[in-house]
Amino acid sequence: MNPMYLRKLAATALLLIVPTGSAFADDGSNTPSDKTQQFRHAIVGGRAKNVILFLGDGMGDSEITIARNYHVGAAGRLALDTLPLTGAYTTYPVQESNPSLPEYVTDSAASGTGWATGHKTSNGRISTVAGSTGIAPYATILELAHAAGFRTGDVSTAEITDATPAVLASHVNARSCQGPANMGPCPAYKKSAGGPGSIAEQLVEHGVDVLLGGGKQRFDQVIDGGPFIGKSVIQEAQALGYTVVTDAAGLASVTPGQPVLGLFNSGNMSLEWTGQLAQPFPGSGPQQCTENQRPSKEPSLAEMTTKALTLLDATPGAHGQGQAHGTPGFFLQVEGASIDKQDHAENPCGQIGETVAFDKAIAVGLEYAKKHPDTLVIVTADHAHTSQIIEPVAANQTNHPGAYSVLTTADGANMTVNYATEPHGTSQDHTGAQVRIAAQGPQAANVVGVSDQTDLFHTMARALGLE
Amino acid sequence: MNPMYLRKLAATALLLIVPTGSAFADDGSNTPSDKTQQFRHAIVGGRAKNVILFLGDGMGDSEITIARNYHVGAAGRLALDTLPLTGAYTTYPVQESNPSLPEYVTDSAASGTGWATGHKTSNGRISTVAGSTGIAPYATILELAHAAGFRTGDVSTAEITDATPAVLASHVNARSCQGPANMGPCPAYKKSAGGPGSIAEQLVEHGVDVLLGGGKQRFDQVIDGGPFIGKSVIQEAQALGYTVVTDAAGLASVTPGQPVLGLFNSGNMSLEWTGQLAQPFPGSGPQQCTENQRPSKEPSLAEMTTKALTLLDATPGAHGQGQAHGTPGFFLQVEGASIDKQDHAENPCGQIGETVAFDKAIAVGLEYAKKHPDTLVIVTADHAHTSQIIEPVAANQTNHPGAYSVLTTADGANMTVNYATEPHGTSQDHTGAQVRIAAQGPQAANVVGVSDQTDLFHTMARALGLE
Repeated sequence: MNPMYLRKLAATALLLIVPTGSAFADDGSNTPSDKTQQFRHAIVGGRAKNVILFLGDGMGDSEITIARNYHVGAAGRLALDTLPLTGAYTTYPVQESNPSLPEYVTDSAASGTGWATGHKTSNGRISTVAGSTGIAPYATILELAHAAGFRTGDVSTAEITDATPAVLASHVNARSCQGPANMGPCPAYKKSAGGPGSIAEQLVEHGVDVLLGGGKQRFDQVIDGGPFIGKSVIQEAQALGYTVVTDAAGLASVTPGQPVLGLFNSGNMSLEWTGQLAQPFPGSGPQQCTENQRPSKEPSLAEMTTKALTLLDATPGAHGQGQAHGTPGFFLQVEGASIDKQDHAENPCGQIGETVAFDKAIAVGLEYAKKHPDTLVIVTADHAHTSQIIEPVAANQTNHPGAYSVLTTADGANMTVNYATEPHGTSQDHTGAQVRIAAQGPQAANVVGVSDQTDLFHTMARALGLE
Repeated sequence: MNPMYLRKLAATALLLIVPTGSAFADDGSNTPSDKTQQFRHAIVGGRAKNVILFLGDGMGDSEITIARNYHVGAAGRLALDTLPLTGAYTTYPVQESNPSLPEYVTDSAASGTGWATGHKTSNGRISTVAGSTGIAPYATILELAHAAGFRTGDVSTAEITDATPAVLASHVNARSCQGPANMGPCPAYKKSAGGPGSIAEQLVEHGVDVLLGGGKQRFDQVIDGGPFIGKSVIQEAQALGYTVVTDAAGLASVTPGQPVLGLFNSGNMSLEWTGQLAQPFPGSGPQQCTENQRPSKEPSLAEMTTKALTLLDATPGAHGQGQAHGTPGFFLQVEGASIDKQDHAENPCGQIGETVAFDKAIAVGLEYAKKHPDTLVIVTADHAHTSQIIEPVAANQTNHPGAYSVLTTADGANMTVNYATEPHGTSQDHTGAQVRIAAQGPQAANVVGVSDQTDLFHTMARALGLE
């Protein structure tokens, strides 16, 4: 063997282009620098004063890539891409009939119970024990933070009684028990049966300082037992000291000092963007989405996040550990809920618009954390979802299995997004793939590698000194 | 407002279960510990002596989760899960007709060119410039390492002339130009036209120290120009000093000191596992896969990896930087190729078996790195793929859009895997989602966060002191 000869042989035939960069248009101008020191500095142990959890419902890696490609181009970066420490986590629930066995696709209720309480449960349950027949709640990170004197906030673009916001400050055996008139599946939890009541009632009775989202219809329902019998949940909230607001102007007028319940839509909050739904062959599009479709009387998720941070940052904590650093700290959850809902609906523009709106809220959180580096910021999802970026569908492929749409992206190129886990026109499935988790601030290094959604509870609890 | 009152109100109705663990069966026994220090220690800057790149073809997060669930259970961990530093990277190629525009789904050739050379190219190209009509090669990490005196190895379960192994040590405008008789799409590269020849010819002429995989058919073809005209590529390899082996016993007998070309199958290497293909409604299964199906005369990927490490570790480097640490270092690429190929084929058992075999090869690499901590180990994929874990398909859902199979996993539970990016019976698509990258050793921190596949070239080059 003669390596020099071999090398010479190769060199005669090929004049090699030695790379100097990795640019999108490959202009060789941006060789990336060594980030070792940067990541070393990103690892901060110890306690956090505040925790902000950004939860993108159904925001798997595919949904992130779709939104990035469309909104900032394939080489662009979203705010959620900039968090320094990253990993993946598993999301599986357990079976209701046999909680020693897993299922492989979770809903938001079981997944949320996992990250909110540190315990696996079965699909549909809100922070209660899988397989239990009576009242069997798991304590949540929000409840533990509240009890320790931290301020708490819970913000969503869904009904605020929907699964993700619900898991933090309520406990029922079925996620549909959102208001006092919806308690059919949760008889033991009814106020009239001596139980803690619906999700709506529990949210305000838990004294969450900031509750912002949709779902006013649940709070208009009439309470059927306990001290507030015959009143609506809004009336109960007001009696408990809540300022109740129902539009963006009302939210803007809220000042620190009392808890706030913002209900900006009867149901889920309005979508940011609209566009053509995915269709079976020959698909829909090529299209660009119609942006700015949310009615101005509904605040954006970024606006709700800004207000929540202002209120939580300014208001003195009740007592205890929240004041460990001199001023009170807080726990805030912000959900981008309709990424999931529009993925279910085969609506790529709806899905992307909600992802972008969620990303703008994350940018608000990162800006806050820049000024308050003792804040643990986490961005993750509760489960993966249906949408996939596929190759262009051939003109003769009449039997293509999915519904799809071609979107013309910020790059000026066409991207095909396919939905095919359920028949077209029915609600698409969640999927079981592990999902991304990203973080910065104290304890953020614990998201790196492969973990489980229940580990996130412990990371947040440790950051706040709760375990 | 009265938070104490609110808290008391909640406490009357609910006796909260405070979590102590995140166990799969939720026995409360394993509260995770703070990993901050562990991750801090995992961050190692500076130079590596060796780089081992494990490339799972088509191994997106969905494929990883499917294999984990099936083989070790949802709460289990694969070897690839244990690398401490993790991130995601983007894989998009550029368009051949206009390289300033991206496409959103890559093939292995363009993706491989990205990580092997630091440059984006168009689908189908092997380390050549997108849109170029003449001979236009990009230098690869393997070539640069070889030139600097490092030993080099390239191992795959595909034909060793397939896209992923090809991008490291050959340059052609079309990936199908694998042997001298396959040069129709690459006229300028033909030996008879004065070009560098097919992928097979270039691999041996580049003097790669260890070449192990399938694809003997390409090396049996006859060379049509240059000094070896009229000879087969195997004859050329032997003339250049290669030991050529064609079965596991032959591989076992190889001793250090000369380059080795192992060709263990005429085409791609045999599958590890078999099982029922996915089918349209009512699907296939429930099934468990039939394991250990690879003929014993073909070595496993783990065996090839073990041998490659033995040969690369033992043999003195030719010259230069490879000897910077006293003994020569090496660059080794190991591809789990048929994860992708069986995902294309709607074959869940094939896909999982290849992922598990790939994982066993990774375990070999991690064991080597334990004894040689100056080794950068990277595990990643070149693109995401079709397979998704979906909810169980209802008994009446005759119009389910995909082909699917129900697999009974190591947990003893059923997992439904769906394929629906192309019509059943045709080759399924790659997908465009970002994919996982994980690493350990010097420079490994550069994989954390969101990067692009071209950044991986620079991380490896920096680790070997090549830029």
